[in-house]
Amino acid sequence: MPTFFEDFSAGQTEEFGAYDVTEEEILQFASQYDPQWFHTDPERAREESIYGGLIASGWHTTAMMMRMLVDEFLSETAALGAKGIDELRWRRPVRPGDTLSLRLTVLETETEGPDRGLVKTRIEVLNDAEVVCSMIALTMFARRDDERDDCGN
Amino acid sequence: MPTFFEDFSAGQTEEFGAYDVTEEEILQFASQYDPQWFHTDPERAREESIYGGLIASGWHTTAMMMRMLVDEFLSETAALGAKGIDELRWRRPVRPGDTLSLRLTVLETETEGPDRGLVKTRIEVLNDAEVVCSMIALTMFARRDDERDDCGN
Repeated sequence: MPTFFEDFSAGQTEEFGAYDVTEEEILQFASQYDPQWFHTDPERAREESIYGGLIASGWHTTAMMMRMLVDEFLSETAALGAKGIDELRWRRPVRPGDTLSLRLTVLETETEGPDRGLVKTRIEVLNDAEVVCSMIALTMFARRDDERDDCGN
Repeated sequence: MPTFFEDFSAGQTEEFGAYDVTEEEILQFASQYDPQWFHTDPERAREESIYGGLIASGWHTTAMMMRMLVDEFLSETAALGAKGIDELRWRRPVRPGDTLSLRLTVLETETEGPDRGLVKTRIEVLNDAEVVCSMIALTMFARRDDERDDCGN
């Protein structure tokens, strides 16, 4: 995968990651940030939820996505941070025992001034072959010919 | 604020929440889910980052948003979970010492079958009067005349 803005082009794709989802971590995240009972109470979730059991907070799923993205992709690039996300969709429940991975596809690139450019990437979070979450990320990358110091690298 | 789908209508608005952002929590979240140096290394962030200091992960900001939303809004409604988010934008850095609050505005409501409806809400995360993050949430709510048991409530 590319590292500077100029290295990206539409159509590039890559798959990576293997994040094991545990009940313990679902409960830990939910108790701190999303204490709705279908994320925090395994027994009640099993008996009463429309999902048939405990599921991860959607924001926990995006956090796990980010950890894989940083470890296996962003940390090796001149990423300057993200402007935002479009079309974030939680498509399927994420449950204890799932193993998540990522599929990235570059959709579009656009310069945003002399020192940086914007890359639109489709990010799909997979559990085996099934897409459980998807989004379009708008990420800024430094241009190769820029003064690197200005980019904080 | 409303509790069932039928209680929502476009234009309703509400402000609430007071979430104190600490350096300790920024470092804790980032070390687990977003270990980029401008979220995990206060000294390097101060000296080298384009942001001029340590900032919270954008996904930490959305997690803090969710905690306020659950505590002061969703927990008193017949919410069934969210389909997704449109137009998520991280507009300003979130830093240690900030106090975040939320402004909700109902944009649109739409039935999605006999038992539930979709409510589109603009959520703005504020630091004092400044919007630091915004998004449009697509949340499902049970209809008032539904068999409550089917909704897990």
